[in-house]
Order: sequence, then structure tokens, then C-alpha cells
Amino acid sequence: LELYPIGIIRSPYKCREDAPRQGRHSSDVTFTLEINPEYAAGLKDIEMASHIIVLYWCHKADRNRLIATPPGSTEPRGVFACRSPARPNPIAFCVAELIRREGSRLYVKGLDALDGSYIVDIKPYISNIDSVENAGVSWFEEKA
Amino acid sequence: LELYPIGIIRSPYKCREDAPRQGRHSSDVTFTLEINPEYAAGLKDIEMASHIIVLYWCHKADRNRLIATPPGSTEPRGVFACRSPARPNPIAFCVAELIRREGSRLYVKGLDALDGSYIVDIKPYISNIDSVENAGVSWFEEKA
Repeated sequence: LELYPIGIIRSPYKCREDAPRQGRHSSDVTFTLEINPEYAAGLKDIEMASHIIVLYWCHKADRNRLIATPPGSTEPRGVFACRSPARPNPIAFCVAELIRREGSRLYVKGLDALDGSYIVDIKPYISNIDSVENAGVSWFEEKA
Repeated sequence: LELYPIGIIRSPYKCREDAPRQGRHSSDVTFTLEINPEYAAGLKDIEMASHIIVLYWCHKADRNRLIATPPGSTEPRGVFACRSPARPNPIAFCVAELIRREGSRLYVKGLDALDGSYIVDIKPYISNIDSVENAGVSWFEEKA
């Protein structure tokens, strides 16, 4: 299964150490999603969404790990049971607030992506189908 | 960017016409996620999650379309502004309820996947970072 990068993320975070653990912890920071010209037609009407799902490629992640120890936990967990970027297919999922669109550029808040990350998909976030309340795992530590 | 299928979805839906538009509309149906043995170690502790994010490959989707007309809309939209399976990288996103785990099999509810879809990633769903209330787009029609 081959993915085509549809664009690139411009982020103030240049390395893992700069980035917060989750996009929710970067709420003051604005990111730019630069969509490649050949895919820009797919953005039509996206400005009608207040929030978007961004799927992007964690190019620095270790694809060979199946076990990781999440921050705030002392217990190793399966990579499918935690949000570590290390996983066989290092696709990160973030819900971002869409601030504005300028042509093929989207300005968003709420990501944790490193600069230069490839965007693989964008979808409108729709609370009726995407939001579940009070779900989580006990060991997940929410602090940044 | 190359994806490795980590498993396969067993679904009662054999073709597009069988499936609901969104997983939320399949709440009585149980799906089986069969994880390949070489990736099963990554499931450690996943049973601690009540809900999981499932990213899977829509193998019947048209990857060359950038405009689609969503159900319930008469207006064509960009594929990044709607939830059509047609898109350059046909990765579907669903939040599923995890019913139980039996070894390398997960039994879940809330998908819209066709039988035989490749699973590309699984993550625990955590409301604190993944849930946004009252977000949506006006033309999205919620009915099945």
C-alpha cells in the first residue's frame, strides 16, 4: 500500500524534544499545512469546517518497535495501546482547529507535528460521528 | 511512503451498498479485527481501552478523485472537506467500541468497513485529546 504525500506541515518544532506530547498542549502555536498544488482542488469548501482531522507521517519514528513505555507510565505497553509515534505504520492522528485558509495553505492550531512532516490526509471533524465522551485508559497521563 | 497491512477486518458488509455511511450507524454489528501474528505483540494492554481509533485502507476507493458529492448534499465538495472514501490516500478513520480481545483478535462495534479491508493502525481513543464538542459542517447529513 503506497501513500502519496499530499503536502507538508510547517511547524516550529524541529525535533522530538521541542514538541509537546499531544497537539492539545500546543494551543497557542499556529502551524501551516501546505498542500501540494496538484491536490489543492480537494480543499474546496474545507473552510466550512471548524476542526479537521490531520493524518500525517512521523518520519522520525521507529517502525520496528511493537512495545513502548508511554510518558508517565512505568509499564511497557503495546504500540497499538498507546500513542507513541513508534509503530509499524507511523501515521499520527490529530484533531486541529482550522483558523483560516489561504489558497492551498491551511493555518491550524492543536498539532504536535515536527516541521517537514508529510500530510497524508485531511478530513472534516464531525462531533456527531467522531466524538466519544469519557473514554480513555487509566495509565494515560494527560500532562504535557 | 509504504504501509504494511497489520491485519484484516472481518465485516458483514461485502460491498459499498451493504455498508452504512458511517460506523456510528452500525452499532448492532460486531466486527473482528484479525491482527497478523507478527504484529500481535503490539496489542499488549489494549483491552484497557474502551474505544479505539481504527485506521484502515479503503481498497475499493477511487484515488484519483479530488471532488465528491456527499450523501445528502447536492453540492460537490473537495474530498478533504468530506468523508468520502475517494481521496488520494484512502485511509478511513473510525472510532470503534472495543468489546473484547481474544489473543490477536479484537471484537469491536461502530465500524463501516467492508470485509477484507486492511488495518493500517490502531490507537487507544482518549477523550481528553481526541474529542471536540459541537464541531461539524452544515451540509453534513447525519442520517444513515
